[in-house]
Amino acid sequence: MDFSSKILENAVNEVSRLPGIGKRTALRLVLHLLKQPKENTNYLAEALLQLRNDIKSCQNCHNISDTVFCDICNNSKRNSEIVCVVEDIRDVMAIESTSQYKGLYHVLGGKISPIEGIGPQNLQIESLVEKVDKGTVKELIFALSSTMEGDTTNFYIYKQIEKYDITTSTIARGISVGDELEYADEVTLGRSIVNRIPFADSMRN
Amino acid sequence: MDFSSKILENAVNEVSRLPGIGKRTALRLVLHLLKQPKENTNYLAEALLQLRNDIKSCQNCHNISDTVFCDICNNSKRNSEIVCVVEDIRDVMAIESTSQYKGLYHVLGGKISPIEGIGPQNLQIESLVEKVDKGTVKELIFALSSTMEGDTTNFYIYKQIEKYDITTSTIARGISVGDELEYADEVTLGRSIVNRIPFADSMRN
Repeated sequence: MDFSSKILENAVNEVSRLPGIGKRTALRLVLHLLKQPKENTNYLAEALLQLRNDIKSCQNCHNISDTVFCDICNNSKRNSEIVCVVEDIRDVMAIESTSQYKGLYHVLGGKISPIEGIGPQNLQIESLVEKVDKGTVKELIFALSSTMEGDTTNFYIYKQIEKYDITTSTIARGISVGDELEYADEVTLGRSIVNRIPFADSMRN
Repeated sequence: MDFSSKILENAVNEVSRLPGIGKRTALRLVLHLLKQPKENTNYLAEALLQLRNDIKSCQNCHNISDTVFCDICNNSKRNSEIVCVVEDIRDVMAIESTSQYKGLYHVLGGKISPIEGIGPQNLQIESLVEKVDKGTVKELIFALSSTMEGDTTNFYIYKQIEKYDITTSTIARGISVGDELEYADEVTLGRSIVNRIPFADSMRN
């Protein structure tokens, strides 16, 4: 692309460094900003700068937070004996929106992925093991995605906490509620038969 | 969406005000920035602020420019007697990339669109008429998109400059080079037959 202005080119280049945004989309976004009042761009830039400079991660669960401990960890009504291990903050938001979970979280900040150069030392695994070592945790729920990286991470953590006397569980995999069996993939359907639950239990939800 | 942090929520809201970016995409972009070094966010914010505060529009053609007159208007090799009327800077970039046009441009900044509340007074039409009135322009090429709004804008401008002794033309509409006739839409195919050109002319390109 041939730009008539270096400033425009620079802005387009910076915006197109965001994931999933190409040069054309970046140009469209940037020209949109130019048509809007100046304040809108100021608000956007300020919000991004504040985000990057002022945001904290909860010292207990590593969830994103404005305070030293996040609202979930600060909430005395939540059961601190159960800890759900998740990949990132989006998983916390997804589980919270179900209103079905009353324990705490532990956000790893990713999965072990040698291809992307992410090893155990890049994740919040040590602090999780320390938490278990203190003896306050009774159950650990693994809620990582069931991919190769997710399974590797689960197994790595499991090996580290095996020696402690705590319950470990993983979220149930199976056919989505409302889905037709005939359209389900074989792996999921197979798992849902092997891991079947007592009928009386299914009526509780 | 339930955010664990007001700062995060604010950033997501600001990013999702951009066209075509929803809350989920905004969250993905914002979390991406959080994983990157601080400098990246600083560069992005700075580029956007500089864009909105320092960018100029060329005083002659209203193209986006870093200087008072843009590179195209400043170029003495270009034919200032021919002016191509376009909607926005993306059209200038598209025509420039063909290397087929050696005249100047006039960027209107949009099309007349009563639905979006854009009238002739919101566009650079007055300055175009003034330019024609000065008598330096010999040909005006209308290169707006052939939509209702584009045609309205073309007609509005045409009515204002009718009285001047200049040539007016519009870019050719027809079947794209390389396209199969059977897949072309009727309107385009119809126009391309009505506006057929001498065979010898088609060999020049």
